[in-house]
Amino acid sequence: MNQNIIADVRRKQPLIHHITNQVVMNFTANGLLSFGGSPIMAKAAEEVADIASVSDGLLINIGTLMQADHKAMILAGKSANNKGIPVVLDPVGVAATTYRKMVIHDILDQVDVTAIKGNAGEMAHLAEIAWETKGVESLGDGNVDEIAQKVAKTFGTVAVVTGKTDTISTGERLLHNDKGHTFLEQVTGAGCLLGSILTACLTTDNPTEEQALSALTFYGLAAEFAASQPNVLGPASFKTNFIDALSFDISRLQRR
Amino acid sequence: MNQNIIADVRRKQPLIHHITNQVVMNFTANGLLSFGGSPIMAKAAEEVADIASVSDGLLINIGTLMQADHKAMILAGKSANNKGIPVVLDPVGVAATTYRKMVIHDILDQVDVTAIKGNAGEMAHLAEIAWETKGVESLGDGNVDEIAQKVAKTFGTVAVVTGKTDTISTGERLLHNDKGHTFLEQVTGAGCLLGSILTACLTTDNPTEEQALSALTFYGLAAEFAASQPNVLGPASFKTNFIDALSFDISRLQRR
Amino acid sequence: MNQNIIADVRRKQPLIHHITNQVVMNFTANGLLSFGGSPIMAKAAEEVADIASVSDGLLINIGTLMQADHKAMILAGKSANNKGIPVVLDPVGVAATTYRKMVIHDILDQVDVTAIKGNAGEMAHLAEIAWETKGVESLGDGNVDEIAQKVAKTFGTVAVVTGKTDTISTGERLLHNDKGHTFLEQVTGAGCLLGSILTACLTTDNPTEEQALSALTFYGLAAEFAASQPNVLGPASFKTNFIDALSFDISRLQRR
Repeated sequence: MNQNIIADVRRKQPLIHHITNQVVMNFTANGLLSFGGSPIMAKAAEEVADIASVSDGLLINIGTLMQADHKAMILAGKSANNKGIPVVLDPVGVAATTYRKMVIHDILDQVDVTAIKGNAGEMAHLAEIAWETKGVESLGDGNVDEIAQKVAKTFGTVAVVTGKTDTISTGERLLHNDKGHTFLEQVTGAGCLLGSILTACLTTDNPTEEQALSALTFYGLAAEFAASQPNVLGPASFKTNFIDALSFDISRLQRR
Repeated sequence: MNQNIIADVRRKQPLIHHITNQVVMNFTANGLLSFGGSPIMAKAAEEVADIASVSDGLLINIGTLMQADHKAMILAGKSANNKGIPVVLDPVGVAATTYRKMVIHDILDQVDVTAIKGNAGEMAHLAEIAWETKGVESLGDGNVDEIAQKVAKTFGTVAVVTGKTDTISTGERLLHNDKGHTFLEQVTGAGCLLGSILTACLTTDNPTEEQALSALTFYGLAAEFAASQPNVLGPASFKTNFIDALSFDISRLQRR
Repeated sequence: MNQNIIADVRRKQPLIHHITNQVVMNFTANGLLSFGGSPIMAKAAEEVADIASVSDGLLINIGTLMQADHKAMILAGKSANNKGIPVVLDPVGVAATTYRKMVIHDILDQVDVTAIKGNAGEMAHLAEIAWETKGVESLGDGNVDEIAQKVAKTFGTVAVVTGKTDTISTGERLLHNDKGHTFLEQVTGAGCLLGSILTACLTTDNPTEEQALSALTFYGLAAEFAASQPNVLGPASFKTNFIDALSFDISRLQRR
C-alpha cells in the first residue's frame, strides 16, 4: 500500500457526500471523521445536486433504498460527474430484490461510477455469475477474480470485491488485500464504512487501484489492531477500538 | 428458560426482516448480529414483500412511523404470513397519538401477528385498560397479568409486556421473567432490540411462550452481566458491555 | 453557570420532541437519556402536532432535511407555540443549499423560536454576515459576538453560536462559555446533541440565557472530563465516556 495516500486524505480532509442507508449513517460519519475525512449526508432531491457540487467525492449506498432516494442518487451522481469528483457505488443487497436490481442498473446507466464495491454475492450478480446469497450476506464460493474482472470491464470502473481476501480489479490489473478481521462481520455497516473510506482515498492524486488498495489495507490493519486490544470482549468493544484505530498513524497500527 | 433455543438461533442464524424505527436501526442490527441472528432492514413498498419472503422472521416496530412505512408494514406482514414465518409487532407509543392507534389496528386487522411486545402503557392501550403514559414511556401501575391475558386473547397472539418484571401470556399460560437491569431504561431502543431478539427466538421449533421466555431471560441475564462489569460508569459503557454480552454463552453470563 | 438548572432537568425529566436528522437520532436519544431528559422522535405530519402538544420542549434540526420533514417541522412548531413550550432551532448546513435556506426562513416566519443554535457559519448566514463554510462545518474567522447579537435581535430569540468559545446573546446580554474539548469535533452530531440538552434546560423556570449557559457549560465540562479519562484512545472511546459523563453530578465532572 501507499502510505502517502492516507496522509493525503488527512491533509485534504475531503468532504464526502453520502447518500447511504439509515442503518449505518452514524457509524459511517464517525468512522470517516476518525479517519480524517469530512462527512455530509443529504438526500433530498431538492438539494443533492448542490451538495455534490461542493463535495470532493460521492458515495451512493442502496442499503435501505426508498423511492425518493433513487431520484436523489441520480441527481447527485450527475452533479458529481459534472464536477469531475469520484463516485463510489455500493450495491447493498442488489441480488435480493427486483427493485434493487432496477435501481442499480438505472444508476449505472445514468452515472459514471469510479468504483463499485460489494461483497462477492452482490458483485457476482452485477457480473451475471451465479452465487449464493442470504439477505445482504454473501455465502457462495467461486472465482472472485473473475467476478472482479468482469464487473470492472462491463461497467468501466474499478471493482472492489470484499471478503476474507479483498479483490481489486481495473479490468486489467488485479490486486489483493488480506488484512482484516472476522469481527468486522459482526459489526453492521463495516462494509458501508469501507465504502466511505474508499471514496475519501479516491479524492487523492494517485492511480485508482492503488487508492483502493490503500483504503482496504489501512481498514484491515485498523481492524487487526482493534481486535488485538486487551479490552475487546465482543463486537461492541471491538467497534469502539476500531473507530479509534481509524484515526491512528499506520505505523502505530503495524507496531502492535 | 430453555438454553437450546438460544443454541438453535445461533446454529440457524435466522434472517430477520426489520421494519423498525430510525432511532434504533444501528443498535438493533448490532445487537442481533452479536446475539447470532442476521438482520436485514428494508422498508420500500417496492421490495418489502420480496425481502419478507426470503426471511425467517419479521419485526414491525412503529417507533418513527411515516406514512410510507404503514403500507410497507402491511405488505411485509402479508408476505410473512404467506410464507408462514413469525411476525412480531412492537406498538411503540401507540397510546400517544391517534395516528399510531389507527396504524396499529390496521396492521392487526390485516396481518396475523405471532407476538405483540410492548411496555405496560402500550399493551394496556391495546387491551383497552386505563394506564398512565408519558411519550413512549409507561408510568402506570396496575394488573399487568390481566393486560397480558387480554391482549393475548383479543388478538390471538402471545403477549409480552415488558417492565421490571416481564409478563408473557398465551391467553392461557402466564410466564414471568425477573432478569434485567435498570440501565436498560437509559439506553434508547433497549425494548426495540428485545423485539428483534424475540423474533429470532421465535424462528426455532419450540412452544412460542418458551421461546419468548428464553429471549427475555437471556436478554435480562446479559444486562445483569454487563451492569456488573467493573468498567461500567454510565449508560454508554453499559451499552458496549451489553452488546458484547449478547454474544456470550449463557453459562458465562450466569458465572459472574 | 447555575447548577440548579441541571438539577431541575433531572427532577422534571422533560419530554423533548425531536424532529432531527437521521445521522444523530440514536446518539441524541442516548445523550439526552443519560443527561436526565426523556426523548421522543416523531416526524409524520399525521402526528407531530399531537406529539408536540404532550411534550415539554421541541427541537427542530434540519441536518438531513426531506420534503416531508419541512411540513412536519411547521406543524410541530405551531403546536409547541400553542402549548407555550420552548422551541429550539438548529439550522444545520443552512448556508450550504438554497433549499435549506428556504426551509429555515419558512420555519422562522411561521414558528416562534425560543433559541437558535448553530456554528458560526450557520449563524453568520442567518445574520447575513459573510463567513466561510465547508459542507456543514464552519471555517471562517470574524466577530462572533456581532453575529450572535444580530441573530438574536433579527429573530427575537436567544442566539447560541458554538465554537471554541460559545457565545450566547439575548440581543442585550452577551455570555460566553470556554468549557469543551476538540474531541467533540470528531464525534458526529455533537452539536446536534447539544441542541437537545439545550432544549431540556430551557424547560426549567430560569432566565433563558442562564439556561443556555448552564447547558453549554455542563456539556463542555462533561467533554473535558471524558477526554481526561485514561481509557480514551480516540473519538469512539471519548464518545462512550462523554455519554456516561452526561449522567454525572457537576461536582464529579469538576473534581477530575
